[in-house]
Order: sequence, then C-alpha cells, then structure tokens
Amino acid sequence: MTDELIQKGMLAKNAAFALASVTASVKDAALSAIADALEERAEEIIAANAADIEAAERNGTRKAMIDRLSLSKERIRDIADGVRQVRALADPIGAVEKMWTRPNGLLIGKKVVPMGVIAIIYEARPNVTVDAAALCLKTSNACILRGGSDAINSNKAIMRVMQDAAYAAGIPEGAMCIIEDTSRETSIELMKMNGCVDMLIPRGGKGLIKSVVDNATVPVVETAAGNCHVYVDGECDLDMAEKIVINAKTQRPSVCNAAETLLIDEAAAPEFIPRIFDALKERGVEIRADDKSKKYYSGDTADANEEDYYTEYNDYIIAVKVVSGVDEAIAHINKYNTKHSEAIVTTNYNKARRFLNEVDAAAVYVNASTRFTDGFEFGFGAEIGISTQKMHARGPMGLEALTSVKYIIFGDGQIRE
Amino acid sequence: MTDELIQKGMLAKNAAFALASVTASVKDAALSAIADALEERAEEIIAANAADIEAAERNGTRKAMIDRLSLSKERIRDIADGVRQVRALADPIGAVEKMWTRPNGLLIGKKVVPMGVIAIIYEARPNVTVDAAALCLKTSNACILRGGSDAINSNKAIMRVMQDAAYAAGIPEGAMCIIEDTSRETSIELMKMNGCVDMLIPRGGKGLIKSVVDNATVPVVETAAGNCHVYVDGECDLDMAEKIVINAKTQRPSVCNAAETLLIDEAAAPEFIPRIFDALKERGVEIRADDKSKKYYSGDTADANEEDYYTEYNDYIIAVKVVSGVDEAIAHINKYNTKHSEAIVTTNYNKARRFLNEVDAAAVYVNASTRFTDGFEFGFGAEIGISTQKMHARGPMGLEALTSVKYIIFGDGQIRE
Repeated sequence: MTDELIQKGMLAKNAAFALASVTASVKDAALSAIADALEERAEEIIAANAADIEAAERNGTRKAMIDRLSLSKERIRDIADGVRQVRALADPIGAVEKMWTRPNGLLIGKKVVPMGVIAIIYEARPNVTVDAAALCLKTSNACILRGGSDAINSNKAIMRVMQDAAYAAGIPEGAMCIIEDTSRETSIELMKMNGCVDMLIPRGGKGLIKSVVDNATVPVVETAAGNCHVYVDGECDLDMAEKIVINAKTQRPSVCNAAETLLIDEAAAPEFIPRIFDALKERGVEIRADDKSKKYYSGDTADANEEDYYTEYNDYIIAVKVVSGVDEAIAHINKYNTKHSEAIVTTNYNKARRFLNEVDAAAVYVNASTRFTDGFEFGFGAEIGISTQKMHARGPMGLEALTSVKYIIFGDGQIRE
Repeated sequence: MTDELIQKGMLAKNAAFALASVTASVKDAALSAIADALEERAEEIIAANAADIEAAERNGTRKAMIDRLSLSKERIRDIADGVRQVRALADPIGAVEKMWTRPNGLLIGKKVVPMGVIAIIYEARPNVTVDAAALCLKTSNACILRGGSDAINSNKAIMRVMQDAAYAAGIPEGAMCIIEDTSRETSIELMKMNGCVDMLIPRGGKGLIKSVVDNATVPVVETAAGNCHVYVDGECDLDMAEKIVINAKTQRPSVCNAAETLLIDEAAAPEFIPRIFDALKERGVEIRADDKSKKYYSGDTADANEEDYYTEYNDYIIAVKVVSGVDEAIAHINKYNTKHSEAIVTTNYNKARRFLNEVDAAAVYVNASTRFTDGFEFGFGAEIGISTQKMHARGPMGLEALTSVKYIIFGDGQIRE
C-alpha cells in the first residue's frame, strides 16, 4: 500500500472516532465556513482549474467534457450554495430509532451513528469533491475521496480550502482528504483497505463500477447503471403517455434515470406508435424498433436487436418493443433491466397494482416519468448517488444512507442464564 | 461456473421473482408443513446423518464436533419447533415504512420487499440448514445454502424434506436449495454470482469470513468475530462487576459475544483483582495478565502480550489489563476490538455516557453482560447471524436484515421540468 494511503487512511480512521463526538452545531459551523471559504478563495481554485483545463485541451479532450470540468466564480458560488443547503438539512446522527425494555429489565436502544470512514471513487466534475465532503461531514463521517486525474489540480485546491475551513472550525484533522495519486493501482489498493474503510461508493461509468465490484474487499454500494423502461398500456391516456415518454427519454438523456426502452401494449400500438415515433424523431431521437412496431409506422426506423434491450444508451436513442400486455411488459423488464427505475402508463387499477408489485426495481412509477428518481426530487434534500443494489440502501441515497446503527443497552447487573 | 450452480442459481432467481407475490398465509402454511415433515420424516434424516457421523469417525473428528453434528428424534423435534417459532413471527414484507406527497403531487412510498436471492455459506451443524431456509422463506427470499462437507448427507436429506413440503404448499420451485458440491472452488464461484445473488452471509470461523471478504464480488454481510471487553470502573458495585465478568467469560466461552479481555480501572484493581482472579480460576479460566495487575495478585497467572489483546480465544482464557480510567479503557477497546459487544460496569453517570458514545461497537452495554448480543435476547425472535460491519445491518440480524426496500410512486402524469 502506498504511503499516501496508509497515512491518510490512519488520519481518517482517527478522525472518524473523534467525529463521533462532534456536535451538530460544530459541524454546521464548519459547513458554513467551507461554503464561505470556497467563495472567498475562488481565484485560487480557478487558477488550479486552469491547469486541468490546459491539460485536457492538450490531450484533445472533447469540448463538452472540458465544459463540465470548468470552474468559474458563478459555478463556485453555486457549489458553495450546495454546501449551505446540506448545512440546512436535519442531522440524522444521534437519533434513537426505537427503544424497548426486555422482560429482564434491559433497556435497548437502536441509535443512528456515523458509518465511520467513507471512500468515494468518482470520475465526474470537481463539484462532486465538495458535495461528497459536505455530505460526509454533515453525517459525522470521515471521507477519503479519489477523483479522476482530469480534475486533480482542481480537486487538490478545493480540498485544501475545505480542510483549512473545516479544521479551523473544530473538525478533527484527517476528517477529509483527496488521494493525490490517481493511478489505477492506488485506486485498487483503496478498494481493499479493510479495517479502515467502512463503506465505498463508486460514482461513474460502467468500467469504474465493474472495477470496484471485481476488486473491492471493503463493503460497497453499487450505483447508477440505469436501463429504465416506460410501458404504455392499452388502457391509458395517450396524451399523458406521450408526455411521459418524451420527458423520460429527452429531458436529459445522459443520466441514469432516463428511459432507454419503450414497451407498447399491442392494443395501444396502432394509435400510439405513429404519434410517439414522430414526436421522438422531431426531438432528434433515433428509434430502434422491433418488427411488430414497424408495422404501425410508415417512416424510417432502425432495427432493435437483443443487445439493444440490454443497452443503457445515455443518448438520443430509444429501443422499442410491442408486447402483448402487462405480463409480457413485466417479464421483459425483469429480464433486461438494471433494477433502477420503471414506469407504467395506465388507467387500469389492477395493472398498476401488478406493475408496482411485480417489477423488481429501486423505483417503480405509475403515470409519472422515470426522471424523478433523484434524492432532491424525492425530497431528501441531498444525494450521494443512486444505489442499484438491494443491500444497505436502494435508490436515491440521502444522508440516511451514510449512517449506521449501534445498540445502546442500559442494565442493572443483568447476566445471561 | 459449475452446472449445479448455474442451474440452481437460475431456479433461485426465478423463484425470487415469484416469491415476491406469495402471500404471508401461503408462506406460513409452508413453514408449518416443513416443521411437520421434518418430524414425520425424521428417520430418513437420521439415516443420512448416520453416514455423516460414520465419515466423521473415520476421519478421527473430535468427539465434541461429532456431538454437534449428531441428529436424534429429539433434536429434530427442537429444530422443527424452531421453524414453528419463525412461522409465528410477524412478516416484515409489504410494510410501507413511510409515504409522503411531493409538492408536484407525486405520492412516494418506501416499501419493504424481499432481498431476492440470499446465499449462506456455513460450517456449522445441520440445524443451520433449517434455520436459514425458514428465515429466508419467512421473508420471501430464495436461498442458496452451502453447508460444510461434514454434514452434506444430513443437509441433502433435510433439504429434500423441506423442498417437498414447501413446494407442495405452494412455494415456487427453486426457492431453496443446497449446493451438493462442497469443494472450495465451487464455494468461491458462489461468492461471485453477481446478477443472481443479492446478499451473501458467511457463518463460520475466521478462515471462512476471510475467504468470503477476499473473494466475494456479490454484496456481503460480514459476521461474528467477537473480541469483546468488560471494563470495570473504579466507581462500581464490585459484586455486580464480578457477576458480569464471570458471566461474560464463562457462561458459554465458545461464542462470539463472550468476553475476551477484562480491563480494570487502577482505582478498583487492589480490591477487585484478587477476588476476580480467584473466581475466574475457580471456574477453570486461564488468566493472562499484564504487569500492573500481577502486582495485586499473589497467585499464578500467565503473561499477556500485545497479541493476546487482539485474540478472540473462544475458550476458558482471559486477557487482563489495568488501565488508568475510562479514557484508556475506551482507547484500548477502540484499538483492539472487532466492533462486536463491549461493556462498562460503573455507577458514574458521566463515564457511562462517555462509554456509550465513544466506544465503536455494534452493542455497547452499561452494567450488563456482553452475552446478550443475540437476536433472541434482543427480542427479534430470530437470528441469522451477528453483523460486525456497519453497512446494511449491524449487530444481531433478525428478519428485517433479510429485507430490502422499493420506492413505489403514484403519479397523475407528472414529468420533470
């Protein structure tokens, strides 16, 4: 293991113990100080960011990516406001969820406590560095962040500013850090820091998730692959169906809760297919259709194959299949989906109920767009990622997903007979 | 992957979908049928068990181990009664924990659902085969069980009886199985069945847990290593302290919630050490003491070294250390413990509060024996294991630990702006 990991891991672990006794007021003061410092020291951050952008340009990075990487005073202000929003959330730590007395008089309470040390490996924009650190601090967790090499200079500068502000406000040193060595080897070592890292959250594309699942020996929450479906039932309001399909596919196609496959009941197909295909094409969406749906459409479409139904395009592409009804729709979804977000559009009570019960996914919708699967849209006030596993947390992860529990037991000399 | 794993994994996955729609009354009828069938077909099970015992004797297995492996009519009746107890528990599946309406009118509910497919790898007695299958069935989960080779004939016979009874009662085929190939290679393949296994629980010794942590790519709940402490404070009722120490160490030394190290406040040492050392020795406990505690005792003791403080003896051995007070006790525990169960004996309010807050463990006790960390003693009515990780479940795992959640969302055409 590299010296950097050993040193920062040890500091994080010690900080985690100390953080368990830090009060909410100290944490909130630190979050305020972080937000203010990010704005006050924006120029320092922007200067570091310029080095990342220069490197990206040298490497011929796509313009859209460079855009995502770029920090301005305005963006930093938005990021700082995000920290202030986290500060304003209720602190989940310390709540005793339930407490009961056993026949022998033992009083047992189930208390919400920090997870301990949370590692987050991400590829995204430097704002994630701030988001992740703020959410971990709010929940009294130490965090070890490992961002992408593209943003390393920005991330280092941001972390320096946050550490200065947090530690001056009384947060124990070591409570947050960024791993400066962005090599793949070091990343894999981080995934194996059992005894230090209590939870690892990967945030990024398929390759990162797969690498974490394959290599990690610490507990992991798998996130974010979303092969989401909208099923348009034969009994439904077709105007509503069109609105929902268009929203789920085109409102922001690059994200995990966007729809990738449209399933259409054959009873709705003759009327719905011409209008929805035209509407999708109008918005620049490529349609990959099965033979059945092509029968109802005179325009051009591409062919859908088996592979398409497994694909999360994250793009202006949609696969389409005509199904015989809700049974085939549910069977198709349970076969091809990634258990993220699934929607039915119907006016039939029984079909709505069956879809809700039988589709296996983190979020199942009746008559709404899949795009709502999001910590903010759900009202959690925050989101550290969207879990697609069933253990620990499922769906949008807010502050609660960053906590664990501890049983506190009050006795008067009880022993076990 | 072996044909057996592929076939049983596929069946389990299909059964998990079907199980999600099976009502509690069908599950309870199946549990009753299983309990009855185990008793009715006890002779068939005992005949298979005889083959395991014969093999164990041939291999020169220790008598205590053979005892643990042996099944009699009486033991089978007790096992069947265990199934009836599981049947009597409240079914957690289907509860909607909370439900709220968003400003846009979306009604969002957080619903308790089965985990899906649960794999359990265990080394213990054949009763675990029944326990595990019953708990998984009660929570609508399909299970893939992999017991030790020592009990394979017993486990196969038990599984046949349970499957016959459950499937006849309307449980979907594939809902429970035992892996007949008990090779290490197949066990490791089971740990990598992503896309099929939603949660893996190892139950056994250190070697098994380590193998699972190192090899598994599916989500794991780590269980059971327990290096537990009792700290006897300077301000306490020494009679109570003696009772608790004796109980925590000797009531059943082989289990994970037994105490392994005794920490004594130097203020209590002169009076407490002579009596507790004598009392422990009377009960056949070997004492491994630090230099400070030896000063207060005229009899013989072994020496404690650094390694002792890390050791889970699971035996009639205890390490002892004199500490300067609650601070050193907490620091020692947080350094050496496995985050399982920790106790303080004190009459001082502030020290009790500090111990509860600052000790990092699944269960922290004031004035009670660590031996209470157990699903039954906590009142859960069941236990599938004791988690020593912080993710998903911590401490004794009852039915709740075998469930996941799903967000169900009721809309009226909402789209995201």
